[in-house]
Amino acid sequence: MTETLMSQAEAQAYLKAHNNWGRWGKDDQMGAMNLITAEKRLEAVSLVKKGRNVSLSRPFPKTPAPNNPTPAMHWMRALGRRFGVSGVIDFYGISYHGQSSTHIDALCHVWDDDGLWNGRTPDVITADGTQWGSIQNWSQGIVTRGVLLDVPKFRGEPFVPQGKPVTAAELEQIARAEGVVMRPGDALCVYSGRENYDRASGLPWGSTGVPRPGLHASCLKFIRESDSSVLVWDMMDEEREEECPWGTHSAIFAFGVALVDNALLEPLAALCAEEGRYEFMLMLCPLVVEGGTGSPLNPIALF
Amino acid sequence: MTETLMSQAEAQAYLKAHNNWGRWGKDDQMGAMNLITAEKRLEAVSLVKKGRNVSLSRPFPKTPAPNNPTPAMHWMRALGRRFGVSGVIDFYGISYHGQSSTHIDALCHVWDDDGLWNGRTPDVITADGTQWGSIQNWSQGIVTRGVLLDVPKFRGEPFVPQGKPVTAAELEQIARAEGVVMRPGDALCVYSGRENYDRASGLPWGSTGVPRPGLHASCLKFIRESDSSVLVWDMMDEEREEECPWGTHSAIFAFGVALVDNALLEPLAALCAEEGRYEFMLMLCPLVVEGGTGSPLNPIALF
Amino acid sequence: MTETLMSQAEAQAYLKAHNNWGRWGKDDQMGAMNLITAEKRLEAVSLVKKGRNVSLSRPFPKTPAPNNPTPAMHWMRALGRRFGVSGVIDFYGISYHGQSSTHIDALCHVWDDDGLWNGRTPDVITADGTQWGSIQNWSQGIVTRGVLLDVPKFRGEPFVPQGKPVTAAELEQIARAEGVVMRPGDALCVYSGRENYDRASGLPWGSTGVPRPGLHASCLKFIRESDSSVLVWDMMDEEREEECPWGTHSAIFAFGVALVDNALLEPLAALCAEEGRYEFMLMLCPLVVEGGTGSPLNPIALF
Amino acid sequence: MTETLMSQAEAQAYLKAHNNWGRWGKDDQMGAMNLITAEKRLEAVSLVKKGRNVSLSRPFPKTPAPNNPTPAMHWMRALGRRFGVSGVIDFYGISYHGQSSTHIDALCHVWDDDGLWNGRTPDVITADGTQWGSIQNWSQGIVTRGVLLDVPKFRGEPFVPQGKPVTAAELEQIARAEGVVMRPGDALCVYSGRENYDRASGLPWGSTGVPRPGLHASCLKFIRESDSSVLVWDMMDEEREEECPWGTHSAIFAFGVALVDNALLEPLAALCAEEGRYEFMLMLCPLVVEGGTGSPLNPIALF
Repeated sequence: MTETLMSQAEAQAYLKAHNNWGRWGKDDQMGAMNLITAEKRLEAVSLVKKGRNVSLSRPFPKTPAPNNPTPAMHWMRALGRRFGVSGVIDFYGISYHGQSSTHIDALCHVWDDDGLWNGRTPDVITADGTQWGSIQNWSQGIVTRGVLLDVPKFRGEPFVPQGKPVTAAELEQIARAEGVVMRPGDALCVYSGRENYDRASGLPWGSTGVPRPGLHASCLKFIRESDSSVLVWDMMDEEREEECPWGTHSAIFAFGVALVDNALLEPLAALCAEEGRYEFMLMLCPLVVEGGTGSPLNPIALF
Repeated sequence: MTETLMSQAEAQAYLKAHNNWGRWGKDDQMGAMNLITAEKRLEAVSLVKKGRNVSLSRPFPKTPAPNNPTPAMHWMRALGRRFGVSGVIDFYGISYHGQSSTHIDALCHVWDDDGLWNGRTPDVITADGTQWGSIQNWSQGIVTRGVLLDVPKFRGEPFVPQGKPVTAAELEQIARAEGVVMRPGDALCVYSGRENYDRASGLPWGSTGVPRPGLHASCLKFIRESDSSVLVWDMMDEEREEECPWGTHSAIFAFGVALVDNALLEPLAALCAEEGRYEFMLMLCPLVVEGGTGSPLNPIALF
Repeated sequence: MTETLMSQAEAQAYLKAHNNWGRWGKDDQMGAMNLITAEKRLEAVSLVKKGRNVSLSRPFPKTPAPNNPTPAMHWMRALGRRFGVSGVIDFYGISYHGQSSTHIDALCHVWDDDGLWNGRTPDVITADGTQWGSIQNWSQGIVTRGVLLDVPKFRGEPFVPQGKPVTAAELEQIARAEGVVMRPGDALCVYSGRENYDRASGLPWGSTGVPRPGLHASCLKFIRESDSSVLVWDMMDEEREEECPWGTHSAIFAFGVALVDNALLEPLAALCAEEGRYEFMLMLCPLVVEGGTGSPLNPIALF
Repeated sequence: MTETLMSQAEAQAYLKAHNNWGRWGKDDQMGAMNLITAEKRLEAVSLVKKGRNVSLSRPFPKTPAPNNPTPAMHWMRALGRRFGVSGVIDFYGISYHGQSSTHIDALCHVWDDDGLWNGRTPDVITADGTQWGSIQNWSQGIVTRGVLLDVPKFRGEPFVPQGKPVTAAELEQIARAEGVVMRPGDALCVYSGRENYDRASGLPWGSTGVPRPGLHASCLKFIRESDSSVLVWDMMDEEREEECPWGTHSAIFAFGVALVDNALLEPLAALCAEEGRYEFMLMLCPLVVEGGTGSPLNPIALF
């Protein structure tokens, strides 16, 4: 696997050369979830030894912030009394893509000039929803082996700073250092220390107009070679050059990989350290939205 | 356990006499989730033998219908092109309580004259959210043993009709017939044949102004005696009399039980029949909404 | 002007032959509002003799109904106390097109195979809003002479029933009977007795799946010949045949006329009858939404 | 009238001593709109000499900004083709109170320890809306004489800066300088140069955490003595001291005056200067929202 730094341009070329289009048939909309077989789910289940669980979700982002320009809506309503009883309901509204909400991207979310996943054109997307690569394809849930690669621990630094992105070569080194081997269908979780970044910086990660540290596009090679099905990350792509415009996000349309953006990985990293292992069962249960481009999500890891 | 039909008035009296207030301390907000220990989660995991999974969620209810007077919102937005790439995002908005959306009720959702869960007054609920019994208490996810009680199969009828509600005595009989024993902390899933009802009726279950068949309030006794932590159901309470105003919904505030309303149980029932067993691992991953009264949900069962 | 019934096919042919494209320049986005000059506004003002005012708006349609499948949203929120004072705010959300909300249609709202107003293609419309014919073109408000044609009064019947649509010939007869002469730039208000219809019918006008009585497409000829700038109506197009698919709604893209749908005209009709005149000052103040396709509206008439 | 600077504490005392509670009956919900009689509307109409019109509304605030933490929502949806025609609709959603949206405050919007307008308690406000002082009371529209007081012109400075608030004494001087006399029922429009402020400052007026220049609480005396029915302003209250917590906003609950916040007054000021007069006809047409606390608004002035 990779040892030297791959450039953005090389990452883009790699992307074009190694996409998964047609791998599971030209009409496939499951993408890399095809790698999660019944056996893979049993492998995931076999990792649960203690019954400990942890959420990888940030709170529903209701508060406006520099990295949350369109905050989620939460409106309460009381129910009238009837026979001496009462109740309360609420409304949730969210434009979950962006830098605040923990969410999963469906295969239709992004594309480049060659098209969406499996080569479809953007014409499949209408104002009523997408006809291709919708989140509903994954409505039966995603249960697989999760592997956490802890970048701050490996580097001995609190967080990934701007200008020093995580690369494919580094991910390989971290896996070796953690004694973990990636296997096809895994959910790759890359912890970059977002909470530490937020505590150290005046502005939260992902603030509008501020450079965002994160992953280098070469990570695409690591994802593809490890045949990961999901990428779970707290920081996302470092500011991208033109050579690989969508950066690691390209894994969506090129490899059919699900992305879980803005995950909360600090508690997971702490639990991995405490348990002394970096593999676990991971459960992703996206809302079943016909034609939807993704879903807000509460990923749960089990140890 | 119960063999004869308990009246609504008796159910109400039972409710008052056997609530769980104080059982886990007067400041407890986890409710019956306290019964789901690490051991319980391991028990759930041990039920996964084949790696088969199935969703218990209906689609995000975007279409107005007689049982969906405030349909969910789904609005699409294209992202501008940048360096020859593009994308699409969307907005989801939902008032998920009611008869259409698969969702979980938090402990604050309903109450009676004695108060909310653990005896708190409704004063804990403000326009900004609830300060007590919010869904965020369950943000680490609910992983437990699920048990399906299949009423149509037991009765030899396609669905539960109006006037013939499911009772506690019947639930006991079904469990025996299925050869399954309820254990503390289980998620009790009661399948009443909602899809068959919808196919047979001119109007979908839960339509405004139409009587709703479903469970009898005596089921409260079954829930309490079995020490279930969650009730998952497709039909909900049959039209209630004054004697037990909130019916089986009372399990929320009296017992600290989570309710998963409008679950899709037909596919689960088919899978249980196929596998010849009615117990499985169940995963509930509610959105982490501070002060929220519940969450839309995609429950996943694993066999 | 018209005396005999024009067929749907003739209305469609008339539409193609007499559109206003290019009349005010090929880049014009004001449409028939060009007819409302400063002099026209002064004419409108001159009609105010008594200082009486009346609203032509229905209530914000928050309640689900057979003619309101996507009800408007109204959510309240209390403001925290500060120095012993408090307050309350709310959120309004509305998909105002349809059969419930009193609203104005902008020139981009509908089109046919020949294109939008002034011949533009639908490509001007993106997910971020329209680049042509947006409501913001009318942000300075529409103040003009309003003329009410009272169909039920003329017919001696409470409302316009299905199968007996209002025609161009009838509008001419009503104007004569009321002693009013249409002038260029007028707002034509056609009262069809919607409230009487609602009281007489089991379902409100505009209910899904129910035929809708209203105007015949021949009214397009009346609008064009009278050079009206605005059409205000309570019932809209009667169920349309293929010959003139958009019916009287075609006035939007063909003539550049604003439509005010679902107006409340019963109180206006009563006031006209009481005052013994059918002309008045009309004020339309649409919200200033960049790229918007229209606006909810509270039209006010002054006598 | 006032000549010397009234302190915040004196303004608060004045407020308590001179409220309008009971002036139009203890059950009155129209407030100072009672001063707008048919004669007053005719007076307004008589000011229209040229037929010129101008909007006082900012654009629907869809873009997140430091003074717009909860931006308005605008979502587009294409209509399916039918018989070769098509259309487009959209959804507007707005939490209009705050510092961005031009809107009118209803009488229920704010209160102090003595209560809401006419002495009602906040108990009249429920999660379904307000039962007192709702915007629907003004559904027939507000048509009155508008008077613009142009502070920047009077001061010879581009905008009102922090620490130099507009006072009652200054308003009197400006009116004299403009040669205009306030009359009961007038809409008082106070232009403070918000656009100039925005151009000169790094952050727009009303940005979170930034002091806001504006009016001194003594303006309450000017409003009450002039018996204005409406206050239209571009900047609002200067940062308030505890002595008069709601500042000029107190006119809502104490005097029954409507406030039009975040008005766009620069074009109006330019037109007043050009026409050489500071009085005009003003039209306010709030949406008819039952139980609503106000409305987004497009106020139109006619000259």
